Amino acid sequence: MFSVTIRDHMMIAHSLRGDVFGPAQRLHGATYVVDATFRRATLDDDGIVVDIGRAAEALRAVVAGLTYRNLDDEAAFAGVNTTTEVLARAVADRLADAARGGALGDGGRQLDGLAVTLHESHVAWATYERPL
Amino acid sequence: MFSVTIRDHMMIAHSLRGDVFGPAQRLHGATYVVDATFRRATLDDDGIVVDIGRAAEALRAVVAGLTYRNLDDEAAFAGVNTTTEVLARAVADRLADAARGGALGDGGRQLDGLAVTLHESHVAWATYERPL
Amino acid sequence: MFSVTIRDHMMIAHSLRGDVFGPAQRLHGATYVVDATFRRATLDDDGIVVDIGRAAEALRAVVAGLTYRNLDDEAAFAGVNTTTEVLARAVADRLADAARGGALGDGGRQLDGLAVTLHESHVAWATYERPL
Amino acid sequence: MFSVTIRDHMMIAHSLRGDVFGPAQRLHGATYVVDATFRRATLDDDGIVVDIGRAAEALRAVVAGLTYRNLDDEAAFAGVNTTTEVLARAVADRLADAARGGALGDGGRQLDGLAVTLHESHVAWATYERPL
Amino acid sequence: MFSVTIRDHMMIAHSLRGDVFGPAQRLHGATYVVDATFRRATLDDDGIVVDIGRAAEALRAVVAGLTYRNLDDEAAFAGVNTTTEVLARAVADRLADAARGGALGDGGRQLDGLAVTLHESHVAWATYERPL
Amino acid sequence: MFSVTIRDHMMIAHSLRGDVFGPAQRLHGATYVVDATFRRATLDDDGIVVDIGRAAEALRAVVAGLTYRNLDDEAAFAGVNTTTEVLARAVADRLADAARGGALGDGGRQLDGLAVTLHESHVAWATYERPL
Repeated sequence: MFSVTIRDHMMIAHSLRGDVFGPAQRLHGATYVVDATFRRATLDDDGIVVDIGRAAEALRAVVAGLTYRNLDDEAAFAGVNTTTEVLARAVADRLADAARGGALGDGGRQLDGLAVTLHESHVAWATYERPL
Repeated sequence: MFSVTIRDHMMIAHSLRGDVFGPAQRLHGATYVVDATFRRATLDDDGIVVDIGRAAEALRAVVAGLTYRNLDDEAAFAGVNTTTEVLARAVADRLADAARGGALGDGGRQLDGLAVTLHESHVAWATYERPL
Repeated sequence: MFSVTIRDHMMIAHSLRGDVFGPAQRLHGATYVVDATFRRATLDDDGIVVDIGRAAEALRAVVAGLTYRNLDDEAAFAGVNTTTEVLARAVADRLADAARGGALGDGGRQLDGLAVTLHESHVAWATYERPL
Repeated sequence: MFSVTIRDHMMIAHSLRGDVFGPAQRLHGATYVVDATFRRATLDDDGIVVDIGRAAEALRAVVAGLTYRNLDDEAAFAGVNTTTEVLARAVADRLADAARGGALGDGGRQLDGLAVTLHESHVAWATYERPL
Repeated sequence: MFSVTIRDHMMIAHSLRGDVFGPAQRLHGATYVVDATFRRATLDDDGIVVDIGRAAEALRAVVAGLTYRNLDDEAAFAGVNTTTEVLARAVADRLADAARGGALGDGGRQLDGLAVTLHESHVAWATYERPL
Repeated sequence: MFSVTIRDHMMIAHSLRGDVFGPAQRLHGATYVVDATFRRATLDDDGIVVDIGRAAEALRAVVAGLTYRNLDDEAAFAGVNTTTEVLARAVADRLADAARGGALGDGGRQLDGLAVTLHESHVAWATYERPL
């Protein structure tokens, strides 16, 4: 199994609802360093998993739809806690849509899976993995 | 599949028995940067894998039982080489006990697996993964 | 010259005023990984720059006064852009007050300088250095 | 499941053929930080996955056969694009040969799998995993 | 004193002349992770050292003039060993030209100094510092 | 001003005397990731600060004299607390002796200064800087 990972980041404000979140129930924010991993069992004729330029553009487009925003005001997350786990899934699902829609080229349609890790600090991160 | 990882560290002395260890047969020491990963197929109603505050406390408690010690004198490791692999398993097994015992809250009992990575330097680390 | 550095972090929301900030004029947020460096020309009788336990507590106290907040609502920053540079200075100045007030022990009063670096992402950070 | 990972690096020149590579079709180069992971279900009697000294030597030997070279001139890669993915597989396959040939000691023959990650920058890396 | 640092990278081929370079006399390559630091004694009215967007563009432009090239063929380095130290100076000098030419805005003309660090691997890097 | 930094590591046991050290008064240990920085105002005719191969060998020799040991038993540190600060100075002073003794070649005698950083964990490190 092969995989390729590219890193980007986003900077958002949000608050979380539920006693379990303690002081994170207040409006605060986070930089998420985003690692997007593209998996595939075999390489294409060029010797790659995916066109890394297109993959980076697709990730940049997903991140651009989230960064420099207060996620409490985003319709896409109405009634949902934008935890690190939930945001990792959101990034992965949007990348999956991009891959199936052809934004990553033909190779993007041959991918077997995706994983997205969001680092919220130097001591905590979350990952969501899914097939494609 | 989701996972959340938290990082802590411990600083121990020990020696290793067996020719394979070369100079590490002498009494020496290590800082282990500890990454504890909690895996779960689905998120709970709050949108999380586990209460990260409780998970961090549980990891801190496990690390507190090992750090600032000479592991050669610890009854828990009598007759056992405290290699990075063995210590990764010890940390994971103690976290598993904490999870099953309720120290991570109800969500801790829904975990599917644990992984613990111990970084012994910038060029070497070991991981132990187990179901829960 | 000796120095000791300790790392902590904080997670804040804020917005920045001025065309130069582009999309960062919107309410967004950041994780700042905070590196606080304590400088001193000579070591004390224990062989240290400063009691690292007390220094970590002092840094934790400063960070606790900023984290999990919307800095746009904080009186301490009224009328001030809370850029990474400005926040690095705020953390350093508060640590300097703590050092002079004795919170770092006698050694804290022997410090020659402080530097604070705030990492806002894996690709950008700012530092403020000052004498003490 | 246990694993042990060791890190080394290599510095190579190469060019890539195919429109997908854009400016990387020109002769350029890369530092690859190489992480080699050795997996095994159980530990040996010494409490280890593999003799880490031998594993590091084996990795060093593999890297020594690639570093400080223009891979466009290497017979081993004639007609093959030396992408990060392809090089990760090459390193893993050569380590697998070393393990089966006894270069990692008896424990090396008990390994269940190998993974090799090549970091080409702080924002991109590729991994190849294989059974043994 | 304040500073702001931004990170980018470049991937080049080159060879070095002189016995001191051993195997690096052969054509090989490197990824340089480039950290550009902009220093200034005081902040401007916006609370910043420099417009980080313009600084990032300026660094990107400098890096674009070097990356994906064989530096042995570049006229700018004819007769010069393109060591990590020499390349750090080249990047810093080109950024200084950009700052003085106004590419960083008015604030860029108020800078007191620049430093450029080139990381050639996880175990080696070089820095060049200069006033402005 | 130019500088070159190389990274190595050492793994030691020790205990510290003095109430300020709390649980670190017990025998424990540390991995120190060691960054040795060599400073020089101008480059030599080869375009370098120092022969990095020789510098790495000199650092390796210094580290070899400390690693895999219980520093409480080392005559060189009798009656001295082997704090991170003290060990950073010891490494720097031994490298300075090597440089002056010619172990780094002629260039080593042209160095203007040395700095040594010892990282004891992902959240704490100490530096000692000295002229040469």
